[in-house]
Amino acid sequence: MTARPSEFDLIRQFFAPLSVGAPGAFNLTDDAAVLSLGPSEELVVTTDTLVARRHFLGTEDTADIARKALRVNLSDLASMGAKPIGYTLALALPDDWTTEWLAAFADGLGRDQREFGIHLLGGDTVSSDAGLHISVTAMGATPAGQSLRRGGARIGDTIWVSGTVGDAALGLLILRDDSLGEISDEARRFLAGRFLLPTPRCTLGPALRGLATAAIDISDGIVADLGHICEVSAVGADLKADAIPRSEAYTAVITQQPSLLQKAFSAGDDYEILFTAPPENDSKVKELSQKIGLPLTPAGTITDGDSVIVTDATGQPMDLAATGYQHF
Amino acid sequence: MTARPSEFDLIRQFFAPLSVGAPGAFNLTDDAAVLSLGPSEELVVTTDTLVARRHFLGTEDTADIARKALRVNLSDLASMGAKPIGYTLALALPDDWTTEWLAAFADGLGRDQREFGIHLLGGDTVSSDAGLHISVTAMGATPAGQSLRRGGARIGDTIWVSGTVGDAALGLLILRDDSLGEISDEARRFLAGRFLLPTPRCTLGPALRGLATAAIDISDGIVADLGHICEVSAVGADLKADAIPRSEAYTAVITQQPSLLQKAFSAGDDYEILFTAPPENDSKVKELSQKIGLPLTPAGTITDGDSVIVTDATGQPMDLAATGYQHF
Repeated sequence: MTARPSEFDLIRQFFAPLSVGAPGAFNLTDDAAVLSLGPSEELVVTTDTLVARRHFLGTEDTADIARKALRVNLSDLASMGAKPIGYTLALALPDDWTTEWLAAFADGLGRDQREFGIHLLGGDTVSSDAGLHISVTAMGATPAGQSLRRGGARIGDTIWVSGTVGDAALGLLILRDDSLGEISDEARRFLAGRFLLPTPRCTLGPALRGLATAAIDISDGIVADLGHICEVSAVGADLKADAIPRSEAYTAVITQQPSLLQKAFSAGDDYEILFTAPPENDSKVKELSQKIGLPLTPAGTITDGDSVIVTDATGQPMDLAATGYQHF
Repeated sequence: MTARPSEFDLIRQFFAPLSVGAPGAFNLTDDAAVLSLGPSEELVVTTDTLVARRHFLGTEDTADIARKALRVNLSDLASMGAKPIGYTLALALPDDWTTEWLAAFADGLGRDQREFGIHLLGGDTVSSDAGLHISVTAMGATPAGQSLRRGGARIGDTIWVSGTVGDAALGLLILRDDSLGEISDEARRFLAGRFLLPTPRCTLGPALRGLATAAIDISDGIVADLGHICEVSAVGADLKADAIPRSEAYTAVITQQPSLLQKAFSAGDDYEILFTAPPENDSKVKELSQKIGLPLTPAGTITDGDSVIVTDATGQPMDLAATGYQHF
């Protein structure tokens, strides 16, 4: 076992390199970082914590743990329409941490920093007898007054969903070794990957400014998250079950295991974006989908109701409870 | 035992009230908060984590735990010359948390929010089988280009120290039931209080803009923290041991227990501000001290050396190692 570096060495070796490119991070040698916004820009800030055993299975690749901790935060920025700038990291390491583990963790952060054009702005590392805690506070910017909110949905708006949903929940079952019937290794890898390394929609989010009336990232499940929009916007929603975008792998599993149908409505962790936009923007949304190469699917309509109604192919309300759906 | 609220109820009951007054926090109902800065202002951001058993004795008042977690971050903002605006809170609760504990914790936050004029902007709460983790990311503002840095100290600058230092370390010994000789209960309470509830110098920090050349808060000990300034500023320092400002309670203890003398140099956790300013500003600094009612004491001079030399009353360099001083 090699000697472990002091906190100062650790900052110098692993974290200061991640701040290069952010002049206001001062190479992590000061008490705080300084961040300049453009004229008439606003700061958008969010924080999310991932905790060992609660958010991780313990078998994940170390770099992927770091990347997921970043990505769930970037997803919140995207759903606000913000362009990400940087983040601070509060890292509590278990007492038995190793430099090898930390090197892999920093490597994962570095990869995603390059992918999403962000930098580490500051942080704090402690070790404790508790397990791994990763708290990221991510910062981004939008032009003043143009952030996307949950409260702007209007009656008649089209409900749009990016990518496909339900995958991550099945991926988690796969990683927990649940049998999901006979599906290909490729489908298995796809679903597991959707849980392990979600893709925050950082290009979509800012492109929705001026186009969408409300947005949220799907982390609690499509029905619950659409419900959050309805609550804050004081509207209802008609969500068409058959129109919710699904991956081929998802469909292959559900066809064999109809008991998993409730996942269709309750599954979170996909980090896709659900947004609403007036129907006159339908063609612009489709153009945007083409332009950024990301499927955007209309899945329902905002109504003058007061909650989310899920309807089947015949337009009849479905009894979600009968599918095993539980509103947490 | 009463039923515990869901995460949503918990936000509504304890945390959303702490965001009132920050319009961009949206009552904590959105994915992220939006923060506007004044024209030509810059954001200053810092993060610090406090962890059970490492940073706490376990006997502290719950409200004080919350307040200290905020204050150590506000101290970093102060040392950058920033006016605090708000903070995000990532809170990991042990599995056995109670609503009573959380109510006291939120009450502590609320008290310090009022005292320092800040608001909760967002957060994330998880419970886990690990212990209590409190990560605060505090945000403040300075006029563009006017934040105080560690790197600006110049040869000939006066070294100033706010308040008194060394108290918190003795307070910790008291809280750990170490005998510190015969000192009054009042002195005992004073020293313990300096550890339990430091006073971030939020009025001093912004007032030093344009007056100080470099600043840092004393959290690692006066010699180490002055050393950080010297390193980044590429200068040396002559720190006069007898000029370091001490409280009466501190002096009473050290007089009886000279073996604690090394605490004079290594003691951290006071969260006072050490800053440097050109000697032509000496009278302005003294005026500021009067104005804000906080002692500011000259304790040495920046030199053309490359490290911190501590000198005794006769001007001779002291052998810190002989006092038991250890550079951590």
